[in-house]
Amino acid sequence: MHETPDFAGRIENSIDRSLTLTNTAFAPQRLTAAVHHAVKPGGARIRPTILLSVSAACGDDHPELSDAAAAALEFIHCASLVHDDLPCFDDAALRRGKPSVHQAYSESLAVLAGDSLIMLAFETIAHAADIDTLRSVRLIHLLARKSGTPDGICAGQGWESENQIDLTAYHQSKTGSLFVAATQMGAIAAGHDPQPWFELGDRIGEAFQVADDLRDALMETDKTGKPSGQDARLGRPNAVAELGAGGAMQRLKQILDAARASIPACPGKDLLEQMIAKEMSRVMPAIPASKKSTM
Amino acid sequence: MHETPDFAGRIENSIDRSLTLTNTAFAPQRLTAAVHHAVKPGGARIRPTILLSVSAACGDDHPELSDAAAAALEFIHCASLVHDDLPCFDDAALRRGKPSVHQAYSESLAVLAGDSLIMLAFETIAHAADIDTLRSVRLIHLLARKSGTPDGICAGQGWESENQIDLTAYHQSKTGSLFVAATQMGAIAAGHDPQPWFELGDRIGEAFQVADDLRDALMETDKTGKPSGQDARLGRPNAVAELGAGGAMQRLKQILDAARASIPACPGKDLLEQMIAKEMSRVMPAIPASKKSTM
Repeated sequence: MHETPDFAGRIENSIDRSLTLTNTAFAPQRLTAAVHHAVKPGGARIRPTILLSVSAACGDDHPELSDAAAAALEFIHCASLVHDDLPCFDDAALRRGKPSVHQAYSESLAVLAGDSLIMLAFETIAHAADIDTLRSVRLIHLLARKSGTPDGICAGQGWESENQIDLTAYHQSKTGSLFVAATQMGAIAAGHDPQPWFELGDRIGEAFQVADDLRDALMETDKTGKPSGQDARLGRPNAVAELGAGGAMQRLKQILDAARASIPACPGKDLLEQMIAKEMSRVMPAIPASKKSTM
Repeated sequence: MHETPDFAGRIENSIDRSLTLTNTAFAPQRLTAAVHHAVKPGGARIRPTILLSVSAACGDDHPELSDAAAAALEFIHCASLVHDDLPCFDDAALRRGKPSVHQAYSESLAVLAGDSLIMLAFETIAHAADIDTLRSVRLIHLLARKSGTPDGICAGQGWESENQIDLTAYHQSKTGSLFVAATQMGAIAAGHDPQPWFELGDRIGEAFQVADDLRDALMETDKTGKPSGQDARLGRPNAVAELGAGGAMQRLKQILDAARASIPACPGKDLLEQMIAKEMSRVMPAIPASKKSTM
């Protein structure tokens, strides 16, 4: 029988350890506070939880390296949220139910907080390199690729400035890239080949995108912590617009089955399946009664 | 007798090689173009030139690793310029005599181009890790620290949002950090201890700041490619405001002497002294005749 692993505790501890690197007596205090605001308290921490789940399934022989990788991945995710919320992108006043960083501080501090979090992500892994130098540099390489352009979240956001959007590339880079980073970094941290873990990350990303589209289309502002209907208003591609709510829900279930089927043989396969199902259930939209008739 | 090394050629080749990583058929083309705009054609490439000069002085036994480090450092510098030019910071319409990235493309593409360049910096070093894994991860660690907060350029910019500015920390992080990165990364790339190279980078940064203050106070917009008198208008600390132009010029000479004196014993010390003098002469302001009476 397995004990449920305390991934949440490991992730917060790792994040807190890294955040202390930015908080010295000689740091500009408002920037330090803006960085903290961007990261704490967090959302569901889904990406680092998946990373630790895959690492655990692969044996997790260097848990401190996995923890560093998990914190780094979450920093990149938080940085992307801070920058995406800026007035020149989504102009979002709220994030996770509290003021977005540029609202709470300023636009310039939001740009800097995002930049600082990106640097902190790479610093965090490099700082842990004594544990295993080769794995560290591989983690950094993968994280950089999955965060930048053309294969990363920067490219994903960049597609929104194109006249012609390549939909597959758009979704894969905007949402998929950090989930692929999550599964592949988990494998690398535990000394496994990342290649067989691509599909699981890619499928989870796809599922997450559809779930997000459903939530965006169906829920109210006060549940998501951000104004609803953003995609429709901004004319962004959306699974609900394409397939209808019912079709999108069906598609989501198919993707999750394919995700489960893609898990490579590894010591902790069963536990990983459970973890993935649990993580995904947390992001599945609860359809409000008032909207059920539209499905 | 030494031949003058072709650092400029090496730097451009290394930058071009890395830029091809961002330019694939499936990349969002406007973001790719914005990244290119931010980097090419470059300015004086002073930081990577110093990096290669120090590496050469230390033997440069892995020139391809030095080249990767040089490109990475320049990418971080270019990213900081792109973000500094944004409306929420300096609101600069011009950079190096051409439209700044947000003017030429858009504010959102400027944020993303800066972010992408940061990712590309770390990707570039990690990509070269096969040459020497340990040196690569040390280069990444140092570059991340000198780019983020509290010891890096993000902190430097962050100080401008504080009510009380710690002037030493402000200058060291805003201008000094990437020069310290330049000398110390040069040493690391060549397998030397970076610690004795701190002072040279720190002094060059100080000299550069004073030279910049002089240029900002004394020259016209068309020579610097950016509107003059920015610091005074934005109320930022400035050596000329503090010491007068003559005092600032004298201070600059003292700093450069101290920089020269700080160079650690190494195989290529003489050539390095010449390179540093040459690089600094390129940034020394030519005082216009009309302003000489004020010195």
